Amino acid sequence: MDAGKIKIRPTIDLAQALFSPRSVALVGASGDEAKNTARPQRYLLKYGYAGKIVPINASRSEVLGLQSYKSIKETPFTIDHAFIMVGDVEDALEDCGKAGVPVATIFTDGFADAGAEGLARQQRLVARARALGVRLLGPNSMGMINLAGRCPITVNAVLAMDIPPAGATSIVSQSGTMLGTVLSRGAARGLGFAKLVSVGNEADIGVGEIVQMLAADAETRTILLFLETVRDAATLERAARAAHAAGKPVVAYKLGRSALGQRLARSHTGALAGEDAALDAYFRDCGIVRVDMLETLIEIGPLLAERRPPDLARAPRVGVVTTTGGGAASVVDRLGTHGIETASPDAHSPIIDLTMGKKAATYGAVVQELLAFPGCDAVLAVVGSSAQFDPQHAVEPIIRGNTGSKPLAVFMTPQADQSLALLAQAGIAAFRTPEACADALHAYFSWRSPRQAPVGAAIPWPGELPLKGKLNEEQGLHLFKTLGVPVVETAIARAPDYAHPLAYPVALKILSAEVTHKSDVGGVVLGIASRQDFESKAKSLAREGEPLLVQRMEQGLGEAIVGYRDDPVAGPLVMVGAGGILAELYNDVVIRLAPVGEAEALEMIGQVKGFEVLRGYRGRPPGDLAALARAVAALSRLALIKGRPVREAEANPVMVGATGAVAVDALVLLDEQVRER
Amino acid sequence: MDAGKIKIRPTIDLAQALFSPRSVALVGASGDEAKNTARPQRYLLKYGYAGKIVPINASRSEVLGLQSYKSIKETPFTIDHAFIMVGDVEDALEDCGKAGVPVATIFTDGFADAGAEGLARQQRLVARARALGVRLLGPNSMGMINLAGRCPITVNAVLAMDIPPAGATSIVSQSGTMLGTVLSRGAARGLGFAKLVSVGNEADIGVGEIVQMLAADAETRTILLFLETVRDAATLERAARAAHAAGKPVVAYKLGRSALGQRLARSHTGALAGEDAALDAYFRDCGIVRVDMLETLIEIGPLLAERRPPDLARAPRVGVVTTTGGGAASVVDRLGTHGIETASPDAHSPIIDLTMGKKAATYGAVVQELLAFPGCDAVLAVVGSSAQFDPQHAVEPIIRGNTGSKPLAVFMTPQADQSLALLAQAGIAAFRTPEACADALHAYFSWRSPRQAPVGAAIPWPGELPLKGKLNEEQGLHLFKTLGVPVVETAIARAPDYAHPLAYPVALKILSAEVTHKSDVGGVVLGIASRQDFESKAKSLAREGEPLLVQRMEQGLGEAIVGYRDDPVAGPLVMVGAGGILAELYNDVVIRLAPVGEAEALEMIGQVKGFEVLRGYRGRPPGDLAALARAVAALSRLALIKGRPVREAEANPVMVGATGAVAVDALVLLDEQVRER
Repeated sequence: MDAGKIKIRPTIDLAQALFSPRSVALVGASGDEAKNTARPQRYLLKYGYAGKIVPINASRSEVLGLQSYKSIKETPFTIDHAFIMVGDVEDALEDCGKAGVPVATIFTDGFADAGAEGLARQQRLVARARALGVRLLGPNSMGMINLAGRCPITVNAVLAMDIPPAGATSIVSQSGTMLGTVLSRGAARGLGFAKLVSVGNEADIGVGEIVQMLAADAETRTILLFLETVRDAATLERAARAAHAAGKPVVAYKLGRSALGQRLARSHTGALAGEDAALDAYFRDCGIVRVDMLETLIEIGPLLAERRPPDLARAPRVGVVTTTGGGAASVVDRLGTHGIETASPDAHSPIIDLTMGKKAATYGAVVQELLAFPGCDAVLAVVGSSAQFDPQHAVEPIIRGNTGSKPLAVFMTPQADQSLALLAQAGIAAFRTPEACADALHAYFSWRSPRQAPVGAAIPWPGELPLKGKLNEEQGLHLFKTLGVPVVETAIARAPDYAHPLAYPVALKILSAEVTHKSDVGGVVLGIASRQDFESKAKSLAREGEPLLVQRMEQGLGEAIVGYRDDPVAGPLVMVGAGGILAELYNDVVIRLAPVGEAEALEMIGQVKGFEVLRGYRGRPPGDLAALARAVAALSRLALIKGRPVREAEANPVMVGATGAVAVDALVLLDEQVRER
Repeated sequence: MDAGKIKIRPTIDLAQALFSPRSVALVGASGDEAKNTARPQRYLLKYGYAGKIVPINASRSEVLGLQSYKSIKETPFTIDHAFIMVGDVEDALEDCGKAGVPVATIFTDGFADAGAEGLARQQRLVARARALGVRLLGPNSMGMINLAGRCPITVNAVLAMDIPPAGATSIVSQSGTMLGTVLSRGAARGLGFAKLVSVGNEADIGVGEIVQMLAADAETRTILLFLETVRDAATLERAARAAHAAGKPVVAYKLGRSALGQRLARSHTGALAGEDAALDAYFRDCGIVRVDMLETLIEIGPLLAERRPPDLARAPRVGVVTTTGGGAASVVDRLGTHGIETASPDAHSPIIDLTMGKKAATYGAVVQELLAFPGCDAVLAVVGSSAQFDPQHAVEPIIRGNTGSKPLAVFMTPQADQSLALLAQAGIAAFRTPEACADALHAYFSWRSPRQAPVGAAIPWPGELPLKGKLNEEQGLHLFKTLGVPVVETAIARAPDYAHPLAYPVALKILSAEVTHKSDVGGVVLGIASRQDFESKAKSLAREGEPLLVQRMEQGLGEAIVGYRDDPVAGPLVMVGAGGILAELYNDVVIRLAPVGEAEALEMIGQVKGFEVLRGYRGRPPGDLAALARAVAALSRLALIKGRPVREAEANPVMVGATGAVAVDALVLLDEQVRER
């Protein structure tokens, strides 16, 4: 720091510096109004930013009417927030460090978004920022907009529009453009926002840390996330729990439903794309509401604001009132595909269909009646043509009839901008499309409180097992057994006589850890009934006198597969599915964050279709699914092993009998590097 | 007819009378401007209708400035089209008959929409109309709007809006409100329409007949359908084929994806709701494009106009250009869930991502390049923030770059009304949401030319079989055999000695037609290896000396289920699915209109996931799926039997071997009444 210009900095916390800085340096501010890099200054002035705007421009002393400086370190001001738009980010960062700037937002791209070299550059940048004590938003961030605070620090072209209303919903986006999408579409229907943050590459400050700040932000009631991936699952989980504790719903729209989308997210963001089903489990277990459609993210806010997760144990029921049968059906049909039912005080009619002739008073009274009706969990109000030009017929009665006692969703069939704005003003969730309306109700009903993970002490790794590579089947079964998974009675048989203590019939397997699908290569013989038969089979199976695995033959009523995976994005997961080829062909599996307790495991099992055969299907004897649940819970304790050395594990099949469930095979892959966490 | 006033009527065809009447009688026109029933007159005047408007009002001689008459028969004019809004529809119809009115649109409800009594009233009305020579649209119809012809005959409140542009897309809707939805939403984004028809209860003129007229209509290039059910499948099929022949795409949005939606449609329209999967097959086979989302119906027109079905035999490929990675991903991710791939001239990048800095010339050139690129079948252009206020950056270059050589879909991330209108004007399909955009591309790629049903002479019913009730298994297998389905070798064994000519091992079954799931009640013994064993089993199985069914034991590599159903809505259908519990648990079946040829059957089989085990899964021996296809095609010939007496039939299982496929069970239900068609 320049010794001659010591600046006294009153303490400022990160959230304040990020969202409400008292001064902003615009590094690379252009004097050419037409350029992107001129926008931040124009926007700050347009929005009436009350703090100090400090343009930094290497070749000018004035930028669009404001005095500018060659570099941050030459300014006489204390800078709370620097917005960096120049190519030489590293140099600008040094200046920030010297000037004691607490946070820098980096618009410049060419870091992790640009391949391996860019990633290395980013890692160096972050290391240097840490050393300098500067926190970073970005790189490749479009910036931040604090609407209520009249502080937009962004190049986003969306701010060319009229100043949108401020509201109580904040959004964090991994796509800068999508920030503008939410803001412009929201504004067009009267929806206001509090804070909008483009996190870019999340080199330092990530989605999780921003959500943590918003959970504590007085102006934010609902938090929306536009995600292409999750880079900081543990931080985001903590933040989501904090938001839940603060009564603030967190809603995520996440790309990557398809493998194609996952590849694209990877190529576009340079980030790992976790498996979508894993992230689904992650969101659910964090208490984050996931929506399927983009506009749902924009429109769902008022449906969730001030609500708690419904945590329903039965099929959800919606009370429906409409002035158009076709319009109501377009929403209800989709609700049906999600297993949501309708309920009405009139037992003869699934929905209340008010024809055009009915008076406005009727509509409002019906809304009130449904909101009070104990048979439904939420209310859907559908409005036809009158929504376009005559809000007094149905839209205004809905507003008057809304007691707030239940979530209320409104779908209007025509183009109805004025009515959308009226409902937004009244804090009522209104939807442009029947699909987004159904998606929002489905998302609401799928919303769960953050789960209470079973408490468990760290489990030591059994010292007798190796800590690298792949376990052989005996070792795998041994590991499962130490966790409490019932495993098949097993022995090792060795040359020359292959003696073993098990009663016949038995199964015989080669023991190599290298062969994953033993039965595909003839490495398994089942149903050996006698000692004599056993000896000849053993001799033909064992290569060069290798030891063999002998197992008691287990008969089950059905087969299950139980798996575990330490996902690079979502963390430890446990999976249960129907055995045989069903899990693979039909993806008939259910995934949750690990570890799970027995009750949660039983709930997972309840969602596997293939287990129908074990639930008394067509008079078949029922299987012991409670025992299977115990096995799932036990296997999921792999997540508690100190250092989490297991990358993947699978018990396939687990034989489910009339009483009990037994793992008869084990596959365990260990991490290349044991993580110490 | 009043003898004193004979009117000479120049010939007018139904389409002309319906869409472009030279005179319209408004029966029940109100003198109170605020009433619904005053709207048709106001709208006709507003739109500058060039024909004669004749208000009919029992108690006035003047209605809102026009001379009115007590009844149609008292008017001195020739009336081409009567719009009936009065409660006494029957009386008005008599007047129409007397005055020689060729078509009457009935707005009044209280017919099939109002339960059994209403339905009976409707049937009487139609019978009387036929006798009088008056064609009916409705009852419960909102009317018809001919935009280019400036002839709106409707009570739809949507016409309160500014007069929308005329276009080349026409729509037929079973929901009157949804007509307004399409018109108002379309107009808001600059999309024009030709003719809009609300068909109401379709008592006489149905969707099919309207589509037939539109197929011949010079102003219509694309036909949209909003459907809650299909009431006239055969007529609609003919009309869809006529539209295809005329180069006019037909697009359907149909409610009833879920059972809840189907129940609602039934209660709301009084119509039978066909099974959704059956209607899916029906639409496909008629060459009708089915969309999943409501806005897709509104937006898809320009994507299909002047196109033919792509009939692709491989996964479709889309070339993508974008100014926003997140925006493109939101569409591409959904395309991926439909199995649609991306393709790019740059092998290193799945999509062409133009950053904000690139010049407008670049965007247009890339669009041109992709439209010319032989590796893709359609082009997706995504535009970010610039679409809102700066169409010159990307939207206008797209318009200039569009050569029309391939379908081009545009998705714009911000609120972008002006750009939507620009693209609409240019005849380019533009989408408000990524979901509708992906849905439209998926619908386009799923579009098939109307199928060529296999030609087959009517098949006589085997005289030796009963024509009512349920066939027993021997009779069922016999029926299948006459159609060419390979069936298991079968014999009847009778008391006292139960002699039969089959070689062992055999299966033994009771023969009752009344027991559907014989094995569930112990009516089946499999794998009988010897004569001795057979005799004892036969004696214990046969009740009171009943005859028994003996079958050769068939071993297969896998099992299939092949079914047939004469759907009340879609007509004869054939189904193939994986055997065992897979078809039932996972709904792993494929349905097509019957009959099918072998090639089509093989294509169906290719879509059944469970047959993976017969396609060499994990080194298993492959099954003879060509033989299964022959069996499917043969069974589907049930549709050709004279009078179509079979309501439902099922071969379950069909054992598929290394060579051959054999039905080992047969279930056949006959119609209560044999239809003579």
